[in-house]
Amino acid sequence: MPINPQADIEVTALRWVPQPAQGLVKDLRVRWALEEAGLDYRVRLIGAERPDGYAKEQAFCQVPCFRDKDVQIFESGAILQYVGERSETLLPRETQARYRAVQWSYAALSSIEPFVQFRALLNNFWADQEWAEPAKPTFERLARLRLQQLSDRLGGNSWLEGDRFTIGDLMMVTVLRIADRSGQLADFPNLAAYVKRGEARPAFQRALSDQLAAFREHEPQGEAA
Amino acid sequence: MPINPQADIEVTALRWVPQPAQGLVKDLRVRWALEEAGLDYRVRLIGAERPDGYAKEQAFCQVPCFRDKDVQIFESGAILQYVGERSETLLPRETQARYRAVQWSYAALSSIEPFVQFRALLNNFWADQEWAEPAKPTFERLARLRLQQLSDRLGGNSWLEGDRFTIGDLMMVTVLRIADRSGQLADFPNLAAYVKRGEARPAFQRALSDQLAAFREHEPQGEAA
Repeated sequence: MPINPQADIEVTALRWVPQPAQGLVKDLRVRWALEEAGLDYRVRLIGAERPDGYAKEQAFCQVPCFRDKDVQIFESGAILQYVGERSETLLPRETQARYRAVQWSYAALSSIEPFVQFRALLNNFWADQEWAEPAKPTFERLARLRLQQLSDRLGGNSWLEGDRFTIGDLMMVTVLRIADRSGQLADFPNLAAYVKRGEARPAFQRALSDQLAAFREHEPQGEAA
Repeated sequence: MPINPQADIEVTALRWVPQPAQGLVKDLRVRWALEEAGLDYRVRLIGAERPDGYAKEQAFCQVPCFRDKDVQIFESGAILQYVGERSETLLPRETQARYRAVQWSYAALSSIEPFVQFRALLNNFWADQEWAEPAKPTFERLARLRLQQLSDRLGGNSWLEGDRFTIGDLMMVTVLRIADRSGQLADFPNLAAYVKRGEARPAFQRALSDQLAAFREHEPQGEAA
């Protein structure tokens, strides 16, 4: 069980978020990577009102932040690479395989996430906006194009580079979960199966369970809600 | 002059793009990094109709692609890291400084680019869409929030981590040029000055000049246009 209050590694996460965001908050990526690597970590939970000076730690006032004895960084992509350096399981040592893993981590965040994220927002946070409905075809086209290209690339492989799961897959699965939750994977069965393959990993299950446990513990009571 | 037809490193770029995209196509990032690192490269130019099998090289059929004797990769972030490994100028060796550079590269692509890019699209490619005008306030708010946070973080520093220019700055400057060109930096003078500082570097100027030279050479003639 990698959660250990005495651990050197500290991950900053949110105390509670509304149900639609539960299981998607980005500290999940870091928890999952640490579980895969078998590295202990402690969790610092913060609220909607951020601690004083938090922008010095995380310029955009989001989560996760990561620190240990050597570094203090944010951006889940950078953190996954740092964790990957300590686990050959996640980040191969051979040059080509290594940079392919890094490539897919960037691809997930830069070539897929913005498109599926904005498409998802039209269905939820922006659903009441008068422009949301007429904007859908444009965003739908963009998101579907990228998902189709990714689906073609993945083909029948288990993971993006074949048999081996890396930080690139870890990042891509968490990004595709945003698409999956908003129904965008319905026409891409190989991507849906890829997400399920990632979610079936014991490390993912422990990471998700630990994120959700904190939300349950800090569920607003009574007058709030 | 790093362009050298005999070089081991090959960068794939576009033969020509319409004027609004000139100087923003993402092979510029790689050319700039190679110029900073003093590494020779050859250029493979491709057209709007991609070569057969190009999706095997670049899953999203975009540019840049990068290859040398050891790797074949895409995603400008991954390529910048690979080039950075061969140049301590661009990617420090000390752990904290190194991962801060990586952090800012991810921040540029994941926490800034989607917001300024979609905001810019409402002014140009999407300007004719009926929903573009009513959507602007929402996208404007998102983009301004991120730019304000970045401006606060940069403060009066020359570069994101102080005095030293890294791949994080290189990536961030190229992302902010998208914002700058669509007028989004008007209220953020320190970000505008940061972009100018990046653009004033001789390596940037050579990279930009080489990208634009290819476009001039392949400008469509006569009946096209």
